[in-house]
Amino acid sequence: MQVGIVGLGKMGYQLSLNLLDHGYQLVAHDVDKEMVKKISAQGAQGTETLQEMVDRLHSPRVIWLMVPAGEITENVLQSLLPLLDQGDIVIDGGNAHYKDTLRRNRLFAEKGISYLDCGTSGGVDGARNGVCAMVGGDAQAFSKVEKIFRDISVENGYLYTGESGSGHFLKMIHNGIEYGMMQAIAEGFDLLEKSPYEYDYERVASVWNHGSVIRSWLMELMESAFSKDQKLAGIKGVMHSSGEGKWTVETALDLETAAPVIAMSLMMRYRSFEQDTFSGKVVAALRNEFGGHEVEKSDS
Amino acid sequence: MQVGIVGLGKMGYQLSLNLLDHGYQLVAHDVDKEMVKKISAQGAQGTETLQEMVDRLHSPRVIWLMVPAGEITENVLQSLLPLLDQGDIVIDGGNAHYKDTLRRNRLFAEKGISYLDCGTSGGVDGARNGVCAMVGGDAQAFSKVEKIFRDISVENGYLYTGESGSGHFLKMIHNGIEYGMMQAIAEGFDLLEKSPYEYDYERVASVWNHGSVIRSWLMELMESAFSKDQKLAGIKGVMHSSGEGKWTVETALDLETAAPVIAMSLMMRYRSFEQDTFSGKVVAALRNEFGGHEVEKSDS
Repeated sequence: MQVGIVGLGKMGYQLSLNLLDHGYQLVAHDVDKEMVKKISAQGAQGTETLQEMVDRLHSPRVIWLMVPAGEITENVLQSLLPLLDQGDIVIDGGNAHYKDTLRRNRLFAEKGISYLDCGTSGGVDGARNGVCAMVGGDAQAFSKVEKIFRDISVENGYLYTGESGSGHFLKMIHNGIEYGMMQAIAEGFDLLEKSPYEYDYERVASVWNHGSVIRSWLMELMESAFSKDQKLAGIKGVMHSSGEGKWTVETALDLETAAPVIAMSLMMRYRSFEQDTFSGKVVAALRNEFGGHEVEKSDS
Repeated sequence: MQVGIVGLGKMGYQLSLNLLDHGYQLVAHDVDKEMVKKISAQGAQGTETLQEMVDRLHSPRVIWLMVPAGEITENVLQSLLPLLDQGDIVIDGGNAHYKDTLRRNRLFAEKGISYLDCGTSGGVDGARNGVCAMVGGDAQAFSKVEKIFRDISVENGYLYTGESGSGHFLKMIHNGIEYGMMQAIAEGFDLLEKSPYEYDYERVASVWNHGSVIRSWLMELMESAFSKDQKLAGIKGVMHSSGEGKWTVETALDLETAAPVIAMSLMMRYRSFEQDTFSGKVVAALRNEFGGHEVEKSDS
């Protein structure tokens, strides 16, 4: 079976290898020609343009998108839309806001093209060896390509989640939960670091992964991280994010639903960007104004 | 090897069966005579009083405590102390505040009795089939009874954590992390429940346990819970707690460390106790005072 893939970044390249392993005829495209060369050497058919990729795929085409959320996804889809025909199936395997997905689904549906949204979890290792896939969109289109999801996932690792957007929505919530779990783990180790005791964090993470209530893949990743750098001395505590946590909090606001832990996890990421804060200056200034409490002088 | 066990509640009874499985000669005591009978029928030597239990144990004695934290633990320890001799080893396998543990360790050390603090995780099923044990206290005493920890734990599921209190401190932090992880999971499913989509939560939890980043034992427990009651209709959303989350937050305050997600998880548990809140009345009253915004009339 032929599959077109657009996007050979960290996730897309590993997923391509995964698809090749499962015997798919891969027609691959990326703006980065080096990556196209690299995947061609692995047995894929590399193409220089989207048009060339589309031409090389037999109808009805199946095209998997694995490109960064936002503008890039939007541009690729806008370029792809006029090239495709009725009956083709586009799978957006990247992260996207489910409202964008709904809009795109309508746009493609007007031309009779099926648009499936696939939330893909499991990290780079998952993309290579078995993802967890949450797939929304037209049920008939899903059943036509279900074999792909079965093949690239870990056993029992894919789910048809219902109408358009439900896959990306579920992946968004998954990531929101992930933010909260990560922040809880982080605060726990922070308290250990400031405790009166001397713990070996690698061994702590390891014992917690053997029989405790908080055993989890994230704790296994902590064990791995501590095994490389026992106090994470080489890593700065700046917590970037790719947007899905923000979408989760925005969605909580839309739905007027309390999600304070996920929201706080996101805020703590933003807090980590700043060495000093204006809010800190404000509180220190007020304490000084009303109580004469000394302030610390700014370095600058 | 003989082991005395005090406390045959949910955890203590299962742990006793676990110890019996591993060939220990169990001398068991509980204030609940029914439980003493029950464990005697399984091959333990039941005793009616602490004195009788102590008398039946050869020196140096090893006594495992598995009783509720706080007053009950304190009372049992106060009763036990005068009955024991130099060289005996007491293991407090329950949850205790590490500062209580430090005090108790000093008290027992004065009589030459070793006091080990063992944080025990894994729930009732773990107590029966293999716990995760975090053990603090005198290293020599630990090595004398290490075999017990190896036997009752899952493979690689025990850790000597260092000086007195470090086992209970680590277990406290474990539980704090657990609060945060649970609240994050809870908020995620709450958002799904209010989303425009119809998810099958059992299948969602299941797919998340197959290859996703948030796969974890807690998510496996969610799968189990949803399999019994797909919308948890029979369960009221009141979130009780046993104290370790509160201790974690108190410790964060003592250490002047930001742990907002763990703190918020605890606060959300307290919020769940109330149908209506006085804070809600206050905000509604103020909106009415300054802006004439309508208030909802109280039912009572």
